[in-house]
Amino acid sequence: MDRSGEILGCLRNESRYVSGASIATYLGVSRTAIWKHLKQLEQMGYMFEQRKSLGYRLLGTPDKLYPWEIDRYLDTKVLGRNLHYVDSVDSTNTSAIKLAMSGDEEGTCVVAESQGAGKGRLQRRWHSPYGKNLYLSIILRPVIHPSKIYPLTFIPSLAVYDTLAASGLEPRLKWPNDVLIKNRKICGSLIEVSTEMDRVRFVVVGIGLNVNMEEKEIDGEIRDKATSFFMETKKHFERTAVCGMLLNNLERYYEIFRGQGTEVICRLWEERAGINGAFMEIRQFDRVYRGIAEGIDSDGALLLRENDSLVRVIAGDVTV
Amino acid sequence: MDRSGEILGCLRNESRYVSGASIATYLGVSRTAIWKHLKQLEQMGYMFEQRKSLGYRLLGTPDKLYPWEIDRYLDTKVLGRNLHYVDSVDSTNTSAIKLAMSGDEEGTCVVAESQGAGKGRLQRRWHSPYGKNLYLSIILRPVIHPSKIYPLTFIPSLAVYDTLAASGLEPRLKWPNDVLIKNRKICGSLIEVSTEMDRVRFVVVGIGLNVNMEEKEIDGEIRDKATSFFMETKKHFERTAVCGMLLNNLERYYEIFRGQGTEVICRLWEERAGINGAFMEIRQFDRVYRGIAEGIDSDGALLLRENDSLVRVIAGDVTV
Repeated sequence: MDRSGEILGCLRNESRYVSGASIATYLGVSRTAIWKHLKQLEQMGYMFEQRKSLGYRLLGTPDKLYPWEIDRYLDTKVLGRNLHYVDSVDSTNTSAIKLAMSGDEEGTCVVAESQGAGKGRLQRRWHSPYGKNLYLSIILRPVIHPSKIYPLTFIPSLAVYDTLAASGLEPRLKWPNDVLIKNRKICGSLIEVSTEMDRVRFVVVGIGLNVNMEEKEIDGEIRDKATSFFMETKKHFERTAVCGMLLNNLERYYEIFRGQGTEVICRLWEERAGINGAFMEIRQFDRVYRGIAEGIDSDGALLLRENDSLVRVIAGDVTV
Repeated sequence: MDRSGEILGCLRNESRYVSGASIATYLGVSRTAIWKHLKQLEQMGYMFEQRKSLGYRLLGTPDKLYPWEIDRYLDTKVLGRNLHYVDSVDSTNTSAIKLAMSGDEEGTCVVAESQGAGKGRLQRRWHSPYGKNLYLSIILRPVIHPSKIYPLTFIPSLAVYDTLAASGLEPRLKWPNDVLIKNRKICGSLIEVSTEMDRVRFVVVGIGLNVNMEEKEIDGEIRDKATSFFMETKKHFERTAVCGMLLNNLERYYEIFRGQGTEVICRLWEERAGINGAFMEIRQFDRVYRGIAEGIDSDGALLLRENDSLVRVIAGDVTV
């Protein structure tokens, strides 16, 4: 962990004052170094009270996605253990792709307070206001044939589903990768894959999750289509805690994907989505499918009973 | 075309002397500019004869893959029309991927005289001595679902096959992507793909083609497994002409791939390879397939009659 995280750890473990000298001794650095770090932390938004004979006390933690804050909630082996924090970035996915190309290992994450050009599926934009939501990209390096990778699409949805449910919300999954609350989008995911023909080089899983965004902060054209934790509950959520929980859930499903196979992930998604028997309409580039859903196959394709024939749909927008 | 190419064009069109003044007038630049360009071209290996009252005459062209030299042989609409030349590079594929990520358009190529870390399939190295062979990478942006992309594998092989056949050699295709002369590798290709789950962002097709490499220039461990145009014919080939012909062939097959579909490419490959009825052995990570080839299916997978069952093999090494 970063030195900042260690110092904060010392202060957080005690609800009382902690002397600079004891922190210095504990971490094996000089008192001057501690003082400098505290000044730096103040500039980052932390608030400390200092009493001459007693030492320091942590009074306030900023609402930022600092790695050491997320780390407090992490229960993972790999995911999020190397976490790059950026204030503003074009797209966390693009940053993560660059890191992956230069060799960064599986589990490396990029989190940002805002995105200038957040990317959604099918070349859409992802609305990314500052400091309110979660914009997160994760590098994965699954040893799998490229033709078997599609079910990875369901992992962010499953992980977000569990994160929402644990927060008291009632999410619904929409094929292929949407998570909705009362028909409004609370989450988007964009998976980008770099392969050779026979081998996956890396995958970047990008997740945008609307946490504390308020209705007034949403662009007009999508205002009635989007929601957030806050909009649903009127409560403010700790984004660092949500991020930690999400990464924990992601790792759990990723381990199932790798250990038990893509088929199991497809069944888990199908079960949570409860789509079987529902009428669905799928719009694709050139045609519209309408029929009764009969589940998804082991490749992640949607099986749709259209009139008398069973159609296999591999991508597109879906209207239920 | 680059100014260097234009000046060389003026000199090449005439077997006699051409005055600097007439080149300057033709191209609408100053005589000093022409003189400077000629000096630059001399530094690049061109040789000119200058006679005071007559002007310049082109005496010699260096054995380099300069874009304007390759351009003379190009008959393409898109492929190779934007050609980046580099003397030495880690890997032309890696360079092309960077260009593609920053938005370079379909058809953009990178050619190099040598590669410091030439990449082959399955994380192997590609032997890349200086100035002897062709190391070429091409950016493609096919509008196709990622699950349909595998047959693109056959396009470099088909294009190289035709290029070799037109040069008087007798190539043989080996599944999935090898081109052999008398059982020795003359060409390697590595296709790298960047996708979202539902959309191909870009493809980089990398081709290493052994042209004038001599046996003594080949690393010991692969010496009996590799060959070149020169080793087969004892003749020196113009690499620029070979590169132009290869790009022409690539574009032709790529247009078939896009216009007539992946199935047609699979049939063309199958026909050229003549594999049907041949006994084949395919080694994969965990098992070995042995059987009689019954062609390849529309996904590019090899169909193998193993005992009584028809097995579908999607990648791996193949031993005939």
